[in-house]
Amino acid sequence: MPKRRAPRDPVDDVLHALADPSRRRIVERLIRSPASVSELAAPLPMSLPAVHQHLRVLEASGLIASEKVGRVRTCRVEPAALAPVERWVIAQRSTWEQRLDRLGEYLGE
Amino acid sequence: MPKRRAPRDPVDDVLHALADPSRRRIVERLIRSPASVSELAAPLPMSLPAVHQHLRVLEASGLIASEKVGRVRTCRVEPAALAPVERWVIAQRSTWEQRLDRLGEYLGE
Repeated sequence: MPKRRAPRDPVDDVLHALADPSRRRIVERLIRSPASVSELAAPLPMSLPAVHQHLRVLEASGLIASEKVGRVRTCRVEPAALAPVERWVIAQRSTWEQRLDRLGEYLGE
Repeated sequence: MPKRRAPRDPVDDVLHALADPSRRRIVERLIRSPASVSELAAPLPMSLPAVHQHLRVLEASGLIASEKVGRVRTCRVEPAALAPVERWVIAQRSTWEQRLDRLGEYLGE
């Protein structure tokens, strides 16, 4: 990795967490309703420790939170963590569309 | 990293590429217009080899493309690579909003 001097932004952790298909599957499941770790693990083709590691990455990013009652840990999504990603992507598209509009005007269309 | 068995998705590389603030700065710059590597490097507090490494990550993800003419390499953005990220984030928000609506109906509001 190149040496990083830019200030760390929370959105870095959210994007890193989402850059894995299993973690996106977990978020997609939790968006529908909270779920226990074993419910989250059931459809995933990996060991339970691997699922726990993905959950730690998601929790560190702020995308999910969890609570343990007795022996059951229940996870829920924190959808507000997705908002900065959505804003950034939409801002890029908006800037791109403005550029195309200016090009269109320049070409006299 | 947990052992990954889920199929690799191109959006993984796009999200990984965007999970670094310097790479997002490069994309934000290129969304406005194409730029040479030295123009991209000028505002970034890092060495030219570090900039090249970031550009390689961005190019491998499909977010940017580059062309060398003489001694000048010019980069341009490929905004279509952002579309799957935008779709995924908006789909999550939509599912979340439907869940809130159902909850509101259930509570008789």
